[in-house]
Amino acid sequence: MTAAFAERIPSLEPSKLAMVPFVSVDHMMKLINAIGPANVLSEMASYVEADFLRWEAFDKTPRVASHSREGVIELMPTSDGETYGFKYVNGHPANMARGFQTVTAFGVLARVDNGYPVLLSEMTILTALRTAATSALVAKYLAPKGSKTMAMIGNGAQCEFQALAFKQVVGIDTVRLYDIDPRATAKAVENLSETGLKVIACQSSQEAVDGAQIITTCTADKQYATILTDNMVGSGVHINAIGGDCPGKTELHKDILLRSDIFVEYPPQTRIEGEIQQLSEDHEVTEIWKVMTGKAEGRTSDSQITLFDSVGFATEDFSALRYIRDQLDRTGYFIELDMLADPDDPRDLFGMMKRADQ
Amino acid sequence: MTAAFAERIPSLEPSKLAMVPFVSVDHMMKLINAIGPANVLSEMASYVEADFLRWEAFDKTPRVASHSREGVIELMPTSDGETYGFKYVNGHPANMARGFQTVTAFGVLARVDNGYPVLLSEMTILTALRTAATSALVAKYLAPKGSKTMAMIGNGAQCEFQALAFKQVVGIDTVRLYDIDPRATAKAVENLSETGLKVIACQSSQEAVDGAQIITTCTADKQYATILTDNMVGSGVHINAIGGDCPGKTELHKDILLRSDIFVEYPPQTRIEGEIQQLSEDHEVTEIWKVMTGKAEGRTSDSQITLFDSVGFATEDFSALRYIRDQLDRTGYFIELDMLADPDDPRDLFGMMKRADQ
Repeated sequence: MTAAFAERIPSLEPSKLAMVPFVSVDHMMKLINAIGPANVLSEMASYVEADFLRWEAFDKTPRVASHSREGVIELMPTSDGETYGFKYVNGHPANMARGFQTVTAFGVLARVDNGYPVLLSEMTILTALRTAATSALVAKYLAPKGSKTMAMIGNGAQCEFQALAFKQVVGIDTVRLYDIDPRATAKAVENLSETGLKVIACQSSQEAVDGAQIITTCTADKQYATILTDNMVGSGVHINAIGGDCPGKTELHKDILLRSDIFVEYPPQTRIEGEIQQLSEDHEVTEIWKVMTGKAEGRTSDSQITLFDSVGFATEDFSALRYIRDQLDRTGYFIELDMLADPDDPRDLFGMMKRADQ
Repeated sequence: MTAAFAERIPSLEPSKLAMVPFVSVDHMMKLINAIGPANVLSEMASYVEADFLRWEAFDKTPRVASHSREGVIELMPTSDGETYGFKYVNGHPANMARGFQTVTAFGVLARVDNGYPVLLSEMTILTALRTAATSALVAKYLAPKGSKTMAMIGNGAQCEFQALAFKQVVGIDTVRLYDIDPRATAKAVENLSETGLKVIACQSSQEAVDGAQIITTCTADKQYATILTDNMVGSGVHINAIGGDCPGKTELHKDILLRSDIFVEYPPQTRIEGEIQQLSEDHEVTEIWKVMTGKAEGRTSDSQITLFDSVGFATEDFSALRYIRDQLDRTGYFIELDMLADPDDPRDLFGMMKRADQ
């Protein structure tokens, strides 16, 4: 870097240092389609796993939330000491009815040593991918061996990503879909054709969970809901609870929680945002990174109910952004943004501006 | 918005909702030059003032910092209930020697009601502008009436912006410059030619402060430095202390602080980052918004030393971003980024992605 700087010729053209690669929504879709959504999900799961395996290297902090009557805007920063990352994400449950996305997001990676951003990316699609990749990765550790059938209750934006990730990472071959809105289920059935999955549209939650080894709940209402009641959950299943992810929003009946061994990403955040907000503050939970590193046990019996109380953590976004950064040269799907002022003389910001007028 | 959505025709083209205006470094320079740097500084000072006057409307939180051996990366969020804003900013004192900017930054404004970003902007240049606009605005309230001469100790990236802002907002006509590196002073002298200011290069701090009613300190070393010693500061002056802005970095001798009436932006942040980190936690300081709204007194005598212990606060970035957003239509200097996924059916993120491959 020093050599490159020394050789630089004073110029009005933005220097290489000033440029930040940007992945737009359009480029993100092209990038995913070029690699293939299924491949992206399994490759991203490996990145998420690699980062969980070095969990202790990360600077972890609960997300920084700005709440309003309509929703929340959050910043989720983390760092592994070499690379810093953060995600901007909103959650506005009423958005869907108004024609907006409930959740939109973008993210940034930066170099810790000099603070310069090295990637700006859309993260609405990327968050859907990393959530699914994380769910499937966790199920690889917790679901019954040889699980083939997953029930999916809630067939919204996250549904197909989950189905495909579980096919790739866990090896399921069948999904049983249910949503209170049959149009959502029809959409998912259509989108999952030609994926190789057997897709069954069901008329009730009860019907969907019938014969499933894995139950994924992924609904969107911001309220205490009960998507699953206790009698619907048989012994031995793995529950992947995605939708309960903010204060006041849960999906499972408390009795199910009490029968389950509960696994979480980062307890200080999950106790506020996850299903376990229904339980006492000292209710025992296991951090999933400990299962992955062998520091804690995962599934120990065929009759045990395992529950992943997923809320989404900053390291997963970090893993997803790392993955995308590594695909830039492979796919070429990015542009460079002139986002950082980089005068030839760092002390001469004013002069740079003045010269731009000549 | 609902009407617009209802009329929308399903399409692969990103919808208007998906687009976020982006102001690059190049566009920021063009925008500033189009309006004129001096005009920008005085107009921006009005925006900063307007937001200080409604200080209590803001959600305030100390910045979220990620520290490393080399420096710090910070997120500075705030909200006025209608608009949310945050700035990403790094501070890496060693960067300059390596050919990088010590501070680079970018920022975002978003709608609180739906969480959608409405502006992404470079903020390296913008931070320099808002810092200078804020300093000058505060001096308008605190400096001796009729101040004509400002000493500037430290002639780095911030120097010319400060000089110009004080000319516009306070009405100074003379700046007396000193820097330990004469090349920095020479650069500032050159850049300030044709601004209408009388510019005097000095050989020492002592010489620079001679006859000045306002003293601005703006140096960059990350260390406890003593740019001003007690005997250099006469009664009645206003000190604008810019450079001490992180733990371990101060510019003024403690004795000067003890002789001064100290004004700050947001005490919880300034006690950690400002000059007053040298003082006890309960040392009396006045919040500058209270002076502006008449809730507290500013300068009360000709012999009083007033000190603005400036560290930069999130609301100032918010004001600066608001100002830039309001100049977009006036100048046309922005592009639209396809940053938010906005499927025709918010639940059909996967289908949108799939269709992009056709």
